[in-house]
Amino acid sequence: MKIGIIGGGSIGLLMASILAGHNNEITLYVRRVEQMETINKNGITIFPNKETYKVRSLLLDDIDLSDEMLLVCVKQYQLTDIYPFLLNSTCPLIFLQNGMGHIEDIQDFNFTNDVLLATSEHGAIRESDSIVRHTGKGHISIASLSGISSILDEIHSLLVNEDFPIKIEGDWFTMLARKLVINAVINPITAIFQVENGEIIKNPYLKKLSEQLCKEVCSVLQVDSLEHWNRVVSVASNTQNNHSSMKVDVFKRRRTEIDGILGYILKQGEVNFPYTSFAYNSIKALEWNYKQEVNLK
Amino acid sequence: MKIGIIGGGSIGLLMASILAGHNNEITLYVRRVEQMETINKNGITIFPNKETYKVRSLLLDDIDLSDEMLLVCVKQYQLTDIYPFLLNSTCPLIFLQNGMGHIEDIQDFNFTNDVLLATSEHGAIRESDSIVRHTGKGHISIASLSGISSILDEIHSLLVNEDFPIKIEGDWFTMLARKLVINAVINPITAIFQVENGEIIKNPYLKKLSEQLCKEVCSVLQVDSLEHWNRVVSVASNTQNNHSSMKVDVFKRRRTEIDGILGYILKQGEVNFPYTSFAYNSIKALEWNYKQEVNLK
Repeated sequence: MKIGIIGGGSIGLLMASILAGHNNEITLYVRRVEQMETINKNGITIFPNKETYKVRSLLLDDIDLSDEMLLVCVKQYQLTDIYPFLLNSTCPLIFLQNGMGHIEDIQDFNFTNDVLLATSEHGAIRESDSIVRHTGKGHISIASLSGISSILDEIHSLLVNEDFPIKIEGDWFTMLARKLVINAVINPITAIFQVENGEIIKNPYLKKLSEQLCKEVCSVLQVDSLEHWNRVVSVASNTQNNHSSMKVDVFKRRRTEIDGILGYILKQGEVNFPYTSFAYNSIKALEWNYKQEVNLK
Repeated sequence: MKIGIIGGGSIGLLMASILAGHNNEITLYVRRVEQMETINKNGITIFPNKETYKVRSLLLDDIDLSDEMLLVCVKQYQLTDIYPFLLNSTCPLIFLQNGMGHIEDIQDFNFTNDVLLATSEHGAIRESDSIVRHTGKGHISIASLSGISSILDEIHSLLVNEDFPIKIEGDWFTMLARKLVINAVINPITAIFQVENGEIIKNPYLKKLSEQLCKEVCSVLQVDSLEHWNRVVSVASNTQNNHSSMKVDVFKRRRTEIDGILGYILKQGEVNFPYTSFAYNSIKALEWNYKQEVNLK
């Protein structure tokens, strides 16, 4: 299958290398000429296996209209720059982002393509422009946002293999909400305190905080709080030595995804959501601090 | 005047050296023989002036019953160890602690002495067992908790001088509440984010957090929120480059005063105080983290 993957970050590189290994013809669309050239020269190497896959890389301006599927792997806050490039495509679009803030934008865009949404349980760290470390295996969930949903079965049968488990979900909201609750609790708490995922359940005070935050986020999303808290606990336990992406972003003084995650929750009502607001403002305060440092240089 | 000062921390050392300079005979009661010997040998040196004052130091077991006043300068959580030593004293007792949690204990103790409460605006850092750095001048406020309040005027006239301004307050609750709100907002926020006091008003996200926390604490204490917020802003601005004691405690991985400050607020009701609870649990989580490190060694 000819698959275009948009975004050369950790998840884009991971998807490209996993899918390149199974008789797919992959094009990875990136923003920087430098990364494009590196990938065209070296392929993508995936650690810890150290296997290298040949992958074609292009700039997004040169999008190949013969792609049979486009997998969009950029961060939520980068999506608005991407939409215009998708307008001439006719193949199914799969959006793989955290949060839910982008769904309304996608709906407003009225794509004529089939639009699918996905969430990923994989852990990945980008080590260079063409090297990605696969830190945790999981599965990809896919649900249909618009268009015929038979496309789901088709994609599933084309892509799924033992290295790449895929779950088909009937309802995109349930699927995204599940991921959003996990991200809304584990990401900000581990980022504020700069701890590994497991601390959320080992440190009794972080556990209390996380549980309160989880309750509030679930009440906003109108999903069952206990069920989702149990899932947070199980993810924190299964990934106890992992560093959440937001923890890494704060540590590396990069922009985080907080607006797409807790920012989205805060926008859902006029009511005051104090735990959400505390955690949101904490991450924004940390970002503001390091942005100031850059400005002072 | 023969004044006994209990506690060889930053405020105890500061009070001892300031009062020693004005015809008072000071005894500083400390816990460790080592500190006692150092002070008896070297006196107390106060920076940045670099003046050294001769001060007698004793262990608390050897309390001198001819002291005409006892100024208790230990942390709130150390008070329970101190009370028994005060039982044989007859002179006025002045308690200088943050928070309000200790007041009920003092009342339960039914001291027959005159009991006064004090708050301090001075900034001080203990640099060694006999060296203290005076980082910010302010005044001491004193109010009567029990006993004849004429003692206030007496103490004021005996102690006050241009280096040591003292304000007499009519109502201890108002006086302590004022200090408590300042400590409840500036201390935890600067400690969680490891920033100087001024960041509370410079960083717009910390400002939002601090304002919400202030509102909640004021509602619990039933004091005017706007009036106290303006005071927080003014203290944060006047001490913008200072490091709060809680920030320093967390940085040095020491026990903080959080239980006496936000812990006290949380105890005031069955209602959920989310901002207070978030800030409280954050500091407890940080303390728990470094206590674990010590246990693991």
